[in-house]
Amino acid sequence: MDERARIAMLARILSVPAAGVETAIGDDAAVLEPPHEGHRIVWTIDEQVEGSHFRADWATFHDLGWRSFMAAASDIAAMGATPWCALSALVLPDVVDDAALEQIALGQRDAAREVGAPVVGGNLARGPALSIATTLLGTCARAVTRRGARPGDTLWLAGRLGWAAAGLRALQEGKAQKPQLQFAVAAWRRPTALIAAGRAMAAVAHAAVDVSDGLARDVGHIADASSVNVVFEEAALTSDDALVEAAVALGCSALDLALYGGEDYALVVSSEAPIEGFRRIGEVREGRGGALRSPRGERPLDAVGFDHFAATSTKRA
Amino acid sequence: MDERARIAMLARILSVPAAGVETAIGDDAAVLEPPHEGHRIVWTIDEQVEGSHFRADWATFHDLGWRSFMAAASDIAAMGATPWCALSALVLPDVVDDAALEQIALGQRDAAREVGAPVVGGNLARGPALSIATTLLGTCARAVTRRGARPGDTLWLAGRLGWAAAGLRALQEGKAQKPQLQFAVAAWRRPTALIAAGRAMAAVAHAAVDVSDGLARDVGHIADASSVNVVFEEAALTSDDALVEAAVALGCSALDLALYGGEDYALVVSSEAPIEGFRRIGEVREGRGGALRSPRGERPLDAVGFDHFAATSTKRA
Repeated sequence: MDERARIAMLARILSVPAAGVETAIGDDAAVLEPPHEGHRIVWTIDEQVEGSHFRADWATFHDLGWRSFMAAASDIAAMGATPWCALSALVLPDVVDDAALEQIALGQRDAAREVGAPVVGGNLARGPALSIATTLLGTCARAVTRRGARPGDTLWLAGRLGWAAAGLRALQEGKAQKPQLQFAVAAWRRPTALIAAGRAMAAVAHAAVDVSDGLARDVGHIADASSVNVVFEEAALTSDDALVEAAVALGCSALDLALYGGEDYALVVSSEAPIEGFRRIGEVREGRGGALRSPRGERPLDAVGFDHFAATSTKRA
Repeated sequence: MDERARIAMLARILSVPAAGVETAIGDDAAVLEPPHEGHRIVWTIDEQVEGSHFRADWATFHDLGWRSFMAAASDIAAMGATPWCALSALVLPDVVDDAALEQIALGQRDAAREVGAPVVGGNLARGPALSIATTLLGTCARAVTRRGARPGDTLWLAGRLGWAAAGLRALQEGKAQKPQLQFAVAAWRRPTALIAAGRAMAAVAHAAVDVSDGLARDVGHIADASSVNVVFEEAALTSDDALVEAAVALGCSALDLALYGGEDYALVVSSEAPIEGFRRIGEVREGRGGALRSPRGERPLDAVGFDHFAATSTKRA
């Protein structure tokens, strides 16, 4: 297919009518009707690059379309916002043929349906490695940032920790066939942005992040931005027996997976009040940085331990 | 520098207060105040990839930051909109050191200043080749799409044609030092999105595009979307004596440069009324496709001739 035919195929797969979208795929830019005044727009971009975030033989092209979309959608969830619509910029090496491109688009479409935000445009380019950049707009009555956590708050978690990192490690070490690691591999391949949980926390959260680079690092952003100290309860991070079993199969520590593993797209919220669907994993105190508390005592947390597990993409908005 | 320090550097360079921007670099997403009801939001993404759109030795890193930003901003101009703010996703190979990254960001900042739309966030990732994805939001009272050109309209041009393609060819063929090609090389390295011209045409245009992939191909999008035939006047495309001189130095045709060369980011508008700052280059008729008219007669236009000159990135919104 030439590029015109490829774009027509993408338009067929991705085009769906959507509220507030007046012009979608097929012009110089998408045209949107602004949300009601009083609302806020939140806006993020994420990019997944072959060789850094994935190898093409670790997942189907459908998975790669899905997971790259979800990585961006998770940032919208972390703001307490509702996804609205998306653009996607693909860099395609020659080995990505028409059938592979179709699968990437189908993965994006399915993820877009799951979170309720259609792809309304994008860009195609050639390049040496597959990369998928996704930018999403969302709307909310009030955006939850990283600033605003207060001493006395509780840290609440929605979703799982450590599983995607275990799956990544299983793929890297050729252990993806081990029965104890099947769920982990699936978690890495098909994460889901926690949109409903994000909306649930928006009214009461003082601060929130999604766990894309690892719990210690991402909640460390809350500590930095809010000028507070965050304390995790070790027992709350290692209560998942199946994760402990997966860690044994990998010869690593479940606690390290939970603290430093990224790409599960769990949400962590700092708030006084409990939130439905979230469980307590720690608290916020006066001070700076992070700590881990166990029956043996407390130790300061090394937020850079993430390098062992996480991907190399870093948000700056 | 580690990634945290790199992001802090980018924030220092790029952060400027901007209307309607409540949270910029440093959170999971940027937070924006919606434009007034009745306005429209336009939204585009463009990506420039090393090896496909540029070679690192063809321009400074400052140029690469500038031109990638302008490529995206031009899509906002083509909708008749005013740029609002931008996100940037960078894929950095190891050879892009801190000094090079700083120069890319300075180029983005200077382009952002030129068009009045600050970078309010983004993403950093590692990868095998440098790529710069830029997504821009703009606002307007009424968006000018590719649909809406009418038989009887005139085709109007703002900006130059063929120069960036001449510059690209000079760089590819090692002729960048020739005096007749200096302006062409500069045109390729530092294009400028025609924001004021875009605003000027918005009230009267029936349809508009920017020339990123070549005049024949891009105005062909208007012909397709509006179900009309477009006719270019050859004399209007070859009236630039300096382009003719550059074409001679390259051993190619000035007409081909004007028809098939991209990346000048000229604007072409279909409207009944003349527009200040635009000049006539052709007309719109009943029919389909495109044609070229000269004193010798008329011939149908091959919109795919662009492959000889243009880059490989293709908009789909």
